[in-house]
Amino acid sequence: MIRTIFLTAVAASVTASPALAQETAGAPPAVTAEVAYIFNTLLFLIGGFLVMWMAAGFAMLEAGLVRSKNVTTQLFKNISLFSIAGLMYWLIGYNLMYPGDDGWSIAGWIGQLFLPKSIDPVGSGVAGDGYSAASDFFFQLMFCATTASIVSGTLAERVKLWPFMIFTVILTGLIYPIEASWEWGAGWLDQLGFSDFAGSTLVHAAGGFAALAGAIVLGPRLGKYRADGRMQPILGSNLALATLGTFILWLGWFGFNGASQLALGSVNDAADVGRIIVNTNAAASAGVVAAILATQLMFGKIDLTMVLNGALAGLVAITAEPLTPSIPAAMLIGAIGGVIAVATVPVLDRLRIDDVVGAIPVHLFAGIWGTLAVPITNEATSFGVQALGVAAIGAFVFFVSLAVWLVLKATTGVRVDQEAEITGLDVSEMGMEAYPDFVQAK
Amino acid sequence: MIRTIFLTAVAASVTASPALAQETAGAPPAVTAEVAYIFNTLLFLIGGFLVMWMAAGFAMLEAGLVRSKNVTTQLFKNISLFSIAGLMYWLIGYNLMYPGDDGWSIAGWIGQLFLPKSIDPVGSGVAGDGYSAASDFFFQLMFCATTASIVSGTLAERVKLWPFMIFTVILTGLIYPIEASWEWGAGWLDQLGFSDFAGSTLVHAAGGFAALAGAIVLGPRLGKYRADGRMQPILGSNLALATLGTFILWLGWFGFNGASQLALGSVNDAADVGRIIVNTNAAASAGVVAAILATQLMFGKIDLTMVLNGALAGLVAITAEPLTPSIPAAMLIGAIGGVIAVATVPVLDRLRIDDVVGAIPVHLFAGIWGTLAVPITNEATSFGVQALGVAAIGAFVFFVSLAVWLVLKATTGVRVDQEAEITGLDVSEMGMEAYPDFVQAK
Amino acid sequence: MIRTIFLTAVAASVTASPALAQETAGAPPAVTAEVAYIFNTLLFLIGGFLVMWMAAGFAMLEAGLVRSKNVTTQLFKNISLFSIAGLMYWLIGYNLMYPGDDGWSIAGWIGQLFLPKSIDPVGSGVAGDGYSAASDFFFQLMFCATTASIVSGTLAERVKLWPFMIFTVILTGLIYPIEASWEWGAGWLDQLGFSDFAGSTLVHAAGGFAALAGAIVLGPRLGKYRADGRMQPILGSNLALATLGTFILWLGWFGFNGASQLALGSVNDAADVGRIIVNTNAAASAGVVAAILATQLMFGKIDLTMVLNGALAGLVAITAEPLTPSIPAAMLIGAIGGVIAVATVPVLDRLRIDDVVGAIPVHLFAGIWGTLAVPITNEATSFGVQALGVAAIGAFVFFVSLAVWLVLKATTGVRVDQEAEITGLDVSEMGMEAYPDFVQAK
Repeated sequence: MIRTIFLTAVAASVTASPALAQETAGAPPAVTAEVAYIFNTLLFLIGGFLVMWMAAGFAMLEAGLVRSKNVTTQLFKNISLFSIAGLMYWLIGYNLMYPGDDGWSIAGWIGQLFLPKSIDPVGSGVAGDGYSAASDFFFQLMFCATTASIVSGTLAERVKLWPFMIFTVILTGLIYPIEASWEWGAGWLDQLGFSDFAGSTLVHAAGGFAALAGAIVLGPRLGKYRADGRMQPILGSNLALATLGTFILWLGWFGFNGASQLALGSVNDAADVGRIIVNTNAAASAGVVAAILATQLMFGKIDLTMVLNGALAGLVAITAEPLTPSIPAAMLIGAIGGVIAVATVPVLDRLRIDDVVGAIPVHLFAGIWGTLAVPITNEATSFGVQALGVAAIGAFVFFVSLAVWLVLKATTGVRVDQEAEITGLDVSEMGMEAYPDFVQAK
Repeated sequence: MIRTIFLTAVAASVTASPALAQETAGAPPAVTAEVAYIFNTLLFLIGGFLVMWMAAGFAMLEAGLVRSKNVTTQLFKNISLFSIAGLMYWLIGYNLMYPGDDGWSIAGWIGQLFLPKSIDPVGSGVAGDGYSAASDFFFQLMFCATTASIVSGTLAERVKLWPFMIFTVILTGLIYPIEASWEWGAGWLDQLGFSDFAGSTLVHAAGGFAALAGAIVLGPRLGKYRADGRMQPILGSNLALATLGTFILWLGWFGFNGASQLALGSVNDAADVGRIIVNTNAAASAGVVAAILATQLMFGKIDLTMVLNGALAGLVAITAEPLTPSIPAAMLIGAIGGVIAVATVPVLDRLRIDDVVGAIPVHLFAGIWGTLAVPITNEATSFGVQALGVAAIGAFVFFVSLAVWLVLKATTGVRVDQEAEITGLDVSEMGMEAYPDFVQAK
Repeated sequence: MIRTIFLTAVAASVTASPALAQETAGAPPAVTAEVAYIFNTLLFLIGGFLVMWMAAGFAMLEAGLVRSKNVTTQLFKNISLFSIAGLMYWLIGYNLMYPGDDGWSIAGWIGQLFLPKSIDPVGSGVAGDGYSAASDFFFQLMFCATTASIVSGTLAERVKLWPFMIFTVILTGLIYPIEASWEWGAGWLDQLGFSDFAGSTLVHAAGGFAALAGAIVLGPRLGKYRADGRMQPILGSNLALATLGTFILWLGWFGFNGASQLALGSVNDAADVGRIIVNTNAAASAGVVAAILATQLMFGKIDLTMVLNGALAGLVAITAEPLTPSIPAAMLIGAIGGVIAVATVPVLDRLRIDDVVGAIPVHLFAGIWGTLAVPITNEATSFGVQALGVAAIGAFVFFVSLAVWLVLKATTGVRVDQEAEITGLDVSEMGMEAYPDFVQAK
């Protein structure tokens, strides 16, 4: 019943292969394989540009939500994790995630390093493949980097620089590629029928699970949870930057979800990309409005940072299935995501898990919601398999991350000392303030 | 005479229909309907991304031009109005603006809610339509949101949150769709021959008229106009953000004007989009240079905020007709826009209309100029009909907005109390400062 | 040997002409000339949007790296130089850079002013040309503006406004178009076999040489070099803006390098654009990681501003040849660029050349490195000709710029007086502070 109301599609089961050109016998194709190749490549490139831009969005969001004494460090972590992802996903990740028909091999791995399609001369593409291999690599790399971006916000204001970078090396080189391979590398979850269109679980919940493990190992910031059991809010230093970051992420998400259609070389694909973009925007808008209403009702006043997280949670929630819902269904999915982002913050506080930017409510909790909601509008999926996928990826990412954080704690240490934390990481870790000309409170 | 110098075209009257493929008898079409469909859809999507990005531009511009005590509130208003537009334009606006051949009906309205083309299965597009209906909806939604963005800047630093949001509901659900329908919904102005390519009047002047009505009802900020009749300048708190916002808007305008060609599926359309982009940039550049010269001459020094408004006024002015002018004509149109933005500020001050960011000079006055200037380069239009269009839309938007603001004033109230205004809306309305770590002057 | 490892290509010599459609005798072309025209035009437009966005990136980077008392002025210089470029490149530059087959003429120049292809009616494009002339003009204009953006950072905090604008007029109207014409206007360097794909030398080193000449004439900021020979670091006021600027530039560079392929109308071109984007991102990532390691080793701590410059230097270095390198070769080129950006800063300080944002290390030194590195992966080039090109362009831009700066010094003066510099240019030159609500240190 709900399904019949909310479905865009009467019978939704056409899946276009990337380079599929509509042909009728005898006539030339309406879209030739060459033209489809260019469209598909362009989709990957535009999508990749937009998702790359999300790295700037995370940097601004997090720089705005930490205290001014930790801004330089947070900015550095964001540009360094993006760059580390750029190296590690090339060195190990991509080849691990897409092992190819013959499985993983040393020869294949070395070949891969010298570029996707390195045996082709420059100035050549293979039309039969349907898209430029490099454009696909670029797009996939940006998803890997996004996963790492999620972690940095949660752990802000107390994690040491080098252990954080080491964790990023492992996350982008191994953890993300392995779990993403289960679905997008045609692995066992894909074969079971698990569906996660653009990565509510594969990217967002995975990043959230890695962040959760880190937050548990690190412990909360000094002063966040008082001896009397009360929680002391710690305010972000620049809400203009945080809002800018949210708008950047919203824009970038059009590439994240839209280009995950993976093809633009047919009328059907173009129509689907259009539907995805509309649903993505609808879910974000509904997430904002839901968070406005939720914070007004719960706290008696609207909370801007919660509203920003409402937008992001709406986006995360629709990411698992942005194509099959009708617009009102997409809005409902996004609105519930927004409410989750607001309502689960006190839960984390009760557990004394200190998540500086609210990444766990937004990416983990709303990501799980979005993944479990897929069967409501996509008949090809089942609640059981969706739950299994979340559980499997969650367990893998959480426990491997926990192990890595614990090893780091036992070796390099993961947390700055108390004095450094009070002084601020910008002075203690990097020796450079973000806003040296401005007089700071306290 | 001026016309013959400034026209790009010797004989400008080719109007390509969206999916028009050049065909010669017997031969296959050079651009098939399917390929044109994909190009047209891509134009709407890229254009929509860029215009969505303008929402961030308005947020940064306005956050930079208000005092630090009102920044959180201004940021909130910008993300909330964009989200409200996303819901209202879907719920009512789009269907009201484009009633279809059979006029508006309950059945059509309900059908529309479940998506443009909801009866088609996912994975299908109809090539004959020329473009994805969803991509068009997305693009048009962004214009509706832009109209609302214009209002928030003028009314900053004193309007109450909830009445502002209620006004936004009405503006995006009813006022904008109705007046825009007169032209873009093939309404009576369109049939009279009124021409407003991308909305100098339909979007920008309309937003400006709604802002003007609000500013009159609200009254000026405390301290802006002194008892002795002198005006007290109130400085923006962050010119870096204001400049960033201007650059964002400039970039977004390429989508605003360029994708208003509504088609990219033929050589002629692609060539026209190129011309539009060049003219749009030329008008903005000329607006900046004109504002530099005007402020230097008028005030003896260059005024950065006026220069930013010069860029925007140049953009607004060229929006009514970015295609037919030659580059120097586009520059002249933009330069006059820039001068208008500078020269009309004292006029508003004399009338004691307090427009915090200068949105009325930029969007209303330069928008009227651009609309009236269309006949200079576009022979298919007449000054009389252009003036009629401006007057009709202006009267409708202004008086309906005035009525709504007056009803709000009589019911919820529209203005925060004096103490709240002095404290700042961030503390009094939202309980959250934008820059809590920084010591504020005064 | 190094060449064989690092080449993407076994035999790299296919150069596709823009509108080339693959045809086999008798069959219709796989990509018709019309479709190729639209793709090529779209590439220029998307590329132009992204490079225009770099203007905002430079504005934010520079606003973040100057002291708070000079931010308004720096913002103004960035938006004014972009606008001046928009006027001058149209008025003189474009026509000077691309004189056409018959050379430069008064008639050709006047014709050009009324638009590329001004004799064609609106609504028409010429498919045989392969792309919209306006879209090409737009793209090329953005490169001219980028060259000017490089200069403003170096000369910050002491140069007078109007002389800076006059220099920008000459740089964008004459200096850049003349030297760029030598290569991209099919001039003598092009005929010698010089290769600079997207402008490591033509844009970046050229901007750096112009900045170097200005820095020598201006002299260092007060207090930068102390009497005892020690250097006094002057800190940037807002590292969040500087980081945002770097991310913007990184994103914009995808258009800078990617659209410099100049064609997207064939499978080969699309594949090459994909390779270029991947290499561009790889070089930037490697530049960041190299700068992290270099600053940690050289200074014992990571320096965020150096890391940002590492990203930019990696991007500058790969710009001369982003197509032929394999990914690891691109990373090596970028990493060396990053190290150059870090290691050459002390060299400039020893020479007492005060470069406020590090533009000379990034754009000039890494630009030269990138240009000289082209023969490593591109067999069609030689080290000797590359060196000749750098020397010729360097000598021309440096000495002409030096002459212009010296003439300005002798006439208008180029530097604000000592009191104005201490007060800050925002108050002394523009009468408007960037952050008036915030209490400034000192």
